[in-house]
Amino acid sequence: MPHRPSGSGSTGTSGSGSGSGSGSGHVSRSSGSSASDSSPGGTPPVGEVWLVGGGPGDPDLLTVRARRLLDEADVVVHDRLGPVSVLTELPESVQLVDVGKRPHHHPVPQEEIDQLLVDHAKRGRKVVRLKGGDPFVLGRGGEEMAACLEAGVPCHVVPGISSAMAAPAAAGIPVTHRGLATGVLTVSGHDELDLPALAATPHTVVVLMGMGRLHEITAGLVRHGRDPQTPAAVIQQAWTPWQREVRSPLSDLAGAVAREGLTNPAVIVVGAVAGLPAAGQVTGVQVTGAADQGAGASAAAGAATGRLSA
Amino acid sequence: MPHRPSGSGSTGTSGSGSGSGSGSGHVSRSSGSSASDSSPGGTPPVGEVWLVGGGPGDPDLLTVRARRLLDEADVVVHDRLGPVSVLTELPESVQLVDVGKRPHHHPVPQEEIDQLLVDHAKRGRKVVRLKGGDPFVLGRGGEEMAACLEAGVPCHVVPGISSAMAAPAAAGIPVTHRGLATGVLTVSGHDELDLPALAATPHTVVVLMGMGRLHEITAGLVRHGRDPQTPAAVIQQAWTPWQREVRSPLSDLAGAVAREGLTNPAVIVVGAVAGLPAAGQVTGVQVTGAADQGAGASAAAGAATGRLSA
Repeated sequence: MPHRPSGSGSTGTSGSGSGSGSGSGHVSRSSGSSASDSSPGGTPPVGEVWLVGGGPGDPDLLTVRARRLLDEADVVVHDRLGPVSVLTELPESVQLVDVGKRPHHHPVPQEEIDQLLVDHAKRGRKVVRLKGGDPFVLGRGGEEMAACLEAGVPCHVVPGISSAMAAPAAAGIPVTHRGLATGVLTVSGHDELDLPALAATPHTVVVLMGMGRLHEITAGLVRHGRDPQTPAAVIQQAWTPWQREVRSPLSDLAGAVAREGLTNPAVIVVGAVAGLPAAGQVTGVQVTGAADQGAGASAAAGAATGRLSA
Repeated sequence: MPHRPSGSGSTGTSGSGSGSGSGSGHVSRSSGSSASDSSPGGTPPVGEVWLVGGGPGDPDLLTVRARRLLDEADVVVHDRLGPVSVLTELPESVQLVDVGKRPHHHPVPQEEIDQLLVDHAKRGRKVVRLKGGDPFVLGRGGEEMAACLEAGVPCHVVPGISSAMAAPAAAGIPVTHRGLATGVLTVSGHDELDLPALAATPHTVVVLMGMGRLHEITAGLVRHGRDPQTPAAVIQQAWTPWQREVRSPLSDLAGAVAREGLTNPAVIVVGAVAGLPAAGQVTGVQVTGAADQGAGASAAAGAATGRLSA
């Protein structure tokens, strides 16, 4: 990749005051040396880290840029979410590093992932950190960015499609809709939830990583005044062949999910939009572009496209 | 496209009760006739509508699927947001219909757009409705979906990257970040805003289409108790060559935007995340993949990638 760090070395100040932004020309363009070249006899140039959003799971929902960066990477650091099936298609020259789980099913601590990114980049490599969804939406990408900046490693971001919006869409549920919801509140079930505030909001509520506390959340919303009949849904592994969904009034959502056996990863949606007529009419039909005609096509058929049939 | 409506004709019921979803096999696969074929001597088969999210503006941030669908469309119905530059690259066989503005700058009413989609599809055509961002996030895609379903036209959705997340990212601002924000509330400035609730939320607030009321919104948040020093930002035309941004304490955001002359389309971000060190260090460096080396490369340089340099 013919560019290199602009190299000021500053770690920045907190963002008070005002200033114009990226259009104002703080751009350093290089003369063509690759970030993975090493300088003969000297320290190798610092590589770079790309925080890349992988979207909800279907490789077809990667961005054009993300797909290209994966092919061009020296190292791809990935976990178990997002479009993992694309990893098998990458050139053999791309080193894959799985930080999804350690041998005994413990997640790799965030600090270790941060350090890994920095270490690979400092060896002059082009590092793609592939994340499910969007790196900056409940994805801890901000922490990885901060670690890179602190270590003097150039860091780029490529947004991806967040499951917060894409999972409802896969079930035919728009998170906003005229007359039903003019906004959407996205939270993580791993965090402390302000249930009274969530119960009172007029906006669609989307909870990522909330399956382990589904009953607690739904019962809490009802206890704090949300109508038990509020339409709600859980969408499991949206945009993958394992997509499944359940729709139910809020008060019975946890029961319905238990009866149907839905599991993680899944997204919870609470709000009138989950009761729109289109919800329930989604059928999966694979988009039959040329790229889909290979061996994986039949496995991928059935859920790769949210298809709404009248 | 070798598939056709599953054809139940039901318009669905509201989402009460539970049921498993798209993995459960309500799939009808066809035998290869194109949606744009006409049946000799009979009514032409109904075509189909694809609601396609175009992302924030950079054609490189289209999904792989969206990019392919654009090439395969009979008709592309688009407005003035999203990756409009990609339209010039489409095959000549693709009919482009601009519904962005009518001659005297009036927007085309939503009902007319809905009807246009239905009419083209009923003539047996494959219609791509290209929308900026995501069709289902403040994009009125739900209404277009409903119109298609009501008219018996098969409707598919392809999520896109919403500017609600991608515009902050372009300025180095993660909408969630450990210790600063565990959720994000996305609203439209075109709608009635509950300013007391917005002022009280612990989550990052992202306002789309709010530039016309920027002073009203920021002053209202402060009046309802939000700390005037809360970090805030406006990002104009993120991920395009015209990207610019302003960061400022909340109480001076409207003034700073006026001084810098930022204009629509732009996204407003309010919350501690706008004060992260990385904000302010974004420089634009074009990703130099092969596809970018053409005539447009110099125009596109400068803002097409959010680049965070230490």
